[in-house]
Amino acid sequence: MSHNIDGSVLNIRTDLAIEEVNTENVETISDENIKITNIVIDENNKNLYNKKIGNYITIEFDDVTDYNNAKKVENILIKELKKILKLTNIKDKDKCLIIGLGNQKSTPDSLGPLTINNIIVTNHFFNIGINVEEGFRSTAAFSPGVMAQTGLETSNIINAIVKEEKPDFLIVIDSLKASSIDRLNKTIQITDTGISPGSGIGNNRKEISKDNLNIPVIAIGVPTVVDSITIVNDTFNYITNHFSYMKKNIDNPKEKLKIIRTNISKDNIDENDKKELFGLIGNLNENEIKSLIIEVLNPIGYNMIVTPKEIDFVIEKLSNIISGAINNSLHKNVTNL
Amino acid sequence: MSHNIDGSVLNIRTDLAIEEVNTENVETISDENIKITNIVIDENNKNLYNKKIGNYITIEFDDVTDYNNAKKVENILIKELKKILKLTNIKDKDKCLIIGLGNQKSTPDSLGPLTINNIIVTNHFFNIGINVEEGFRSTAAFSPGVMAQTGLETSNIINAIVKEEKPDFLIVIDSLKASSIDRLNKTIQITDTGISPGSGIGNNRKEISKDNLNIPVIAIGVPTVVDSITIVNDTFNYITNHFSYMKKNIDNPKEKLKIIRTNISKDNIDENDKKELFGLIGNLNENEIKSLIIEVLNPIGYNMIVTPKEIDFVIEKLSNIISGAINNSLHKNVTNL
Amino acid sequence: MSHNIDGSVLNIRTDLAIEEVNTENVETISDENIKITNIVIDENNKNLYNKKIGNYITIEFDDVTDYNNAKKVENILIKELKKILKLTNIKDKDKCLIIGLGNQKSTPDSLGPLTINNIIVTNHFFNIGINVEEGFRSTAAFSPGVMAQTGLETSNIINAIVKEEKPDFLIVIDSLKASSIDRLNKTIQITDTGISPGSGIGNNRKEISKDNLNIPVIAIGVPTVVDSITIVNDTFNYITNHFSYMKKNIDNPKEKLKIIRTNISKDNIDENDKKELFGLIGNLNENEIKSLIIEVLNPIGYNMIVTPKEIDFVIEKLSNIISGAINNSLHKNVTNL
Amino acid sequence: MSHNIDGSVLNIRTDLAIEEVNTENVETISDENIKITNIVIDENNKNLYNKKIGNYITIEFDDVTDYNNAKKVENILIKELKKILKLTNIKDKDKCLIIGLGNQKSTPDSLGPLTINNIIVTNHFFNIGINVEEGFRSTAAFSPGVMAQTGLETSNIINAIVKEEKPDFLIVIDSLKASSIDRLNKTIQITDTGISPGSGIGNNRKEISKDNLNIPVIAIGVPTVVDSITIVNDTFNYITNHFSYMKKNIDNPKEKLKIIRTNISKDNIDENDKKELFGLIGNLNENEIKSLIIEVLNPIGYNMIVTPKEIDFVIEKLSNIISGAINNSLHKNVTNL
Repeated sequence: MSHNIDGSVLNIRTDLAIEEVNTENVETISDENIKITNIVIDENNKNLYNKKIGNYITIEFDDVTDYNNAKKVENILIKELKKILKLTNIKDKDKCLIIGLGNQKSTPDSLGPLTINNIIVTNHFFNIGINVEEGFRSTAAFSPGVMAQTGLETSNIINAIVKEEKPDFLIVIDSLKASSIDRLNKTIQITDTGISPGSGIGNNRKEISKDNLNIPVIAIGVPTVVDSITIVNDTFNYITNHFSYMKKNIDNPKEKLKIIRTNISKDNIDENDKKELFGLIGNLNENEIKSLIIEVLNPIGYNMIVTPKEIDFVIEKLSNIISGAINNSLHKNVTNL
Repeated sequence: MSHNIDGSVLNIRTDLAIEEVNTENVETISDENIKITNIVIDENNKNLYNKKIGNYITIEFDDVTDYNNAKKVENILIKELKKILKLTNIKDKDKCLIIGLGNQKSTPDSLGPLTINNIIVTNHFFNIGINVEEGFRSTAAFSPGVMAQTGLETSNIINAIVKEEKPDFLIVIDSLKASSIDRLNKTIQITDTGISPGSGIGNNRKEISKDNLNIPVIAIGVPTVVDSITIVNDTFNYITNHFSYMKKNIDNPKEKLKIIRTNISKDNIDENDKKELFGLIGNLNENEIKSLIIEVLNPIGYNMIVTPKEIDFVIEKLSNIISGAINNSLHKNVTNL
Repeated sequence: MSHNIDGSVLNIRTDLAIEEVNTENVETISDENIKITNIVIDENNKNLYNKKIGNYITIEFDDVTDYNNAKKVENILIKELKKILKLTNIKDKDKCLIIGLGNQKSTPDSLGPLTINNIIVTNHFFNIGINVEEGFRSTAAFSPGVMAQTGLETSNIINAIVKEEKPDFLIVIDSLKASSIDRLNKTIQITDTGISPGSGIGNNRKEISKDNLNIPVIAIGVPTVVDSITIVNDTFNYITNHFSYMKKNIDNPKEKLKIIRTNISKDNIDENDKKELFGLIGNLNENEIKSLIIEVLNPIGYNMIVTPKEIDFVIEKLSNIISGAINNSLHKNVTNL
Repeated sequence: MSHNIDGSVLNIRTDLAIEEVNTENVETISDENIKITNIVIDENNKNLYNKKIGNYITIEFDDVTDYNNAKKVENILIKELKKILKLTNIKDKDKCLIIGLGNQKSTPDSLGPLTINNIIVTNHFFNIGINVEEGFRSTAAFSPGVMAQTGLETSNIINAIVKEEKPDFLIVIDSLKASSIDRLNKTIQITDTGISPGSGIGNNRKEISKDNLNIPVIAIGVPTVVDSITIVNDTFNYITNHFSYMKKNIDNPKEKLKIIRTNISKDNIDENDKKELFGLIGNLNENEIKSLIIEVLNPIGYNMIVTPKEIDFVIEKLSNIISGAINNSLHKNVTNL
């Protein structure tokens, strides 16, 4: 079993509710190739899943580098943000502090700071008594950096500023870690349960949540990295399903031709195929395999992240979508032209 | 008389003590073309100058784009920082928070954030119980951004973080405003009297000082801009002295030839020449001329800064000098190899 | 007379046609507070103005930090770009190379490189035989940097790439120098006469134009700086007109109250007032005053630029407008949603 | 077998000579934990290895985030650069063009552009006849960007500029792809055989080499990424050796305790253990396994890179080491103080 920096046992966990919750019995809306899933974790089901009580909205889409698709995602994000503002009882005049977590200098971790760059801030106008147009609330925006650069616990910085500035609610943007490479840059999760800074690419840090700060915290996250454990494990599964597919189609040359362009899934593993293919390893279940990978990779001292090559381009598009949607949902007078 | 945003009368003021204090009776050391001036403002002379009680060390130099010259300036800055740490009773193990004021996106205002990029931070290692090598103290570093980007009063952010993190002392780096174009990027001021964020390029904001934070605050500032009032007024003076020079040398062609390469000073104005040359304007004293310039430029709504063309290059060199000197003076184990 | 680096006599010149041409007899369209001026320099009038033969379209506007205003400016820029593409006989399938001149690290000089960041490039898809959607032409984009960083003459780099890549036409974006502070960040000039890199903030460099490259060159420029000569001279004029205004209204307290908020123009100087106010200096004409300012400021070795404080914010908006308009006017399939 | 974008068969290849060449019979010098290996590929051994004829110098080190270690690496790099300049017959006055390949916006691919930021350029002074101090040669520096941003083939841009500017030799800096995670950011390779831009993180592009440009090309590369195939395959091997180790020490609890801190190698695989552990997969050789991984991952359309989390910090240190060493080895008058 592997240990992280503070000596506690590392739980293999994901930042995305949708990856842990059985979504068969949740509401799902499909809109123009964009899928929205609402998951509610409450007293009844919280023990089933390793997730906090609250709402989790997941928007799944295909490709935000396409301009028209990006516009659609932005419009849906506006609608869902307005919905969660209502669910959390945010009023029109409530003062909002928007926080961009992450490291501007590390491309896959720069989503938060990049988003902050395009947030409309008005709080200083309210403070110094400048007449602000009707339809704008008080907003402030902030990027606390990461502990490796500041030497400070990010949650402490946020806690301090919340105490000083007394916003009515927070919106926090962060890069997340997915537990599957299929989701990278193709999912936005909105939740009112808060966030742990650095949980995506670092160790668990103190949580930014209503429990700790006494004001509503809406977290917007996008999985931009998987860790090396995930990609190894996913590959095991792809290999197994590839093998199962080949076995079934061994005499069917037409089907075999499909293989290059077909997206063989890594899910619904045939356990017997896995054992045949992978020997002793194939006898382990997913969690055992992951523990084993952690066990062997950890001593090398390398903490690797896996990210698509075109991440710089995609992250810019995603930050534009999120900043646009935040500006639009917070201020009545901003319209998504 | 001109008014700034909150209705109060704008005082024409400078961030540099050396520009306001009569330095004839202060200690001055000249070392390899680098001049160090120590000014002490105390109960006796504080009414003479518009400056707070405390120590002001000014290092004047010529050109930091020269590698060897930059090294000399860095070494002197290390010595002077160590001196002021001693004067302020900072102990070897005292925890330091280093703050980079200013706007990373605006070249002449980016000195603070650029310097922070190269500060050695160790505070998180102390906090999580990692064994830190002997010879390193606890340091943290932070760039609060500017109000136009965050909507938050910079001094409030700093106040909040100081309350939360309880450092023993602060070092604050900022771009300053000079009241003379000769000084731009050629002076470093160190003071234990604190700083007002944005005083260089913006309005007076709340002060970051021992008075407000109850811990020593060492401010390191470099004048990187002058305002438009300064350049106009300086030009008036240069023109006057040019005129005086020409008059005196009207029959001396040899002297006249010098003019192109000579650095005609803008100081020691001949008041009669000024009147002859500038008519009614020449009858005004310096403060009256500055007030007049503010009066006519202000309504245009433009708040202009004046900076040298090569500012991007110079600011990088200056930030390297300052971060190197801070690292070296704070940690015994860092040597300026 | 002052000399620049290569020994030639410096001509006081501006990059904006509209500042040198008597626009009384040119077509001017006023559209929702945005003014468009078409100036045509031809064989007949080229000697009147210090400008090359060709078309100069000038779009004047007020404030691009307002979202709705920015959208209007972008739409007009699209229309005018399409017009000049037609005038220059550019065909739908002609291959375009877009070049962003300037220094990304110096905020007022970063317009070109920032614009390039958001240009849609397709040339590599055409080259490697990927099927490009109907409605897209071949586009490439490039930022050559500045000579102080590269050691290379910018026009040489462009010349080399044009020879190698053989585009059918160029679009070049650059920061310009205005000769009046009123215009800063409030004017876009489009011309088919080309551009001299660095003419805005540096010395005259070799021209990027059809004459030199044998393909049409459309230049898009925005004045983002004035030099120190301009601000001093402008101030002289503002002071004079302020004085004229005060004299006329000396017994009219109501009118005097207006002064703080009124935009006293710096144009239409009363020459007698100027003489009364400025003595000998007031007897000089504008060019003589400018030469005098250059004469006295040059030997200090400072080459100063003057720019508004909020330049970082404005330049980002301007680059978005220009990149959006270029993408839209070059590709039929991009719409300004 | 997998296919890349232009239809050709993808060869699994590495950018590092040291990973392909049997280094038992090459000169190796160990200096203060830094290992230098000289590999010479000539007519006799070129068919043994998939490498071009020429010199390959490899510097292996541990950690450049340690200041003193970084200085040692820089000093060795200076020595080795001077050596290869001599080997390539570069004269003291030969004009050098330094090129930083890669994408400034993608952290692991930003080594080239970051290095360029700190290169001393002098070429423009020579060109305009400014007297350059003795001990400086003519240098120019350039970052051509990447094809995804420019739409232009990088090698074409370089070819064009070389034709125009006629430097006597090139130094090219790039991020490389390693075929083993142990090497990431811990190896610098210098070679006189040139480089293929984008070979590290992209497809094979046209080569930048003496063969194509007719001038010496010295390439400096650091492996900053591995691809997903590598990390999966490495993990297979780590698991196997972990298994072998456990089997041998099953009754030796003391040895078992070592496992967490011990760096179990991924090399010297026991083939029987591999078969027992991995079943059918264990019967494949390394190349077959890699082909299989490519086969199953490719159709997902994801082209993943694997990089250490702290890459932003390390890449900055590496770029400082390389720029410092280039400045020092090219100009006699720059000393590594």
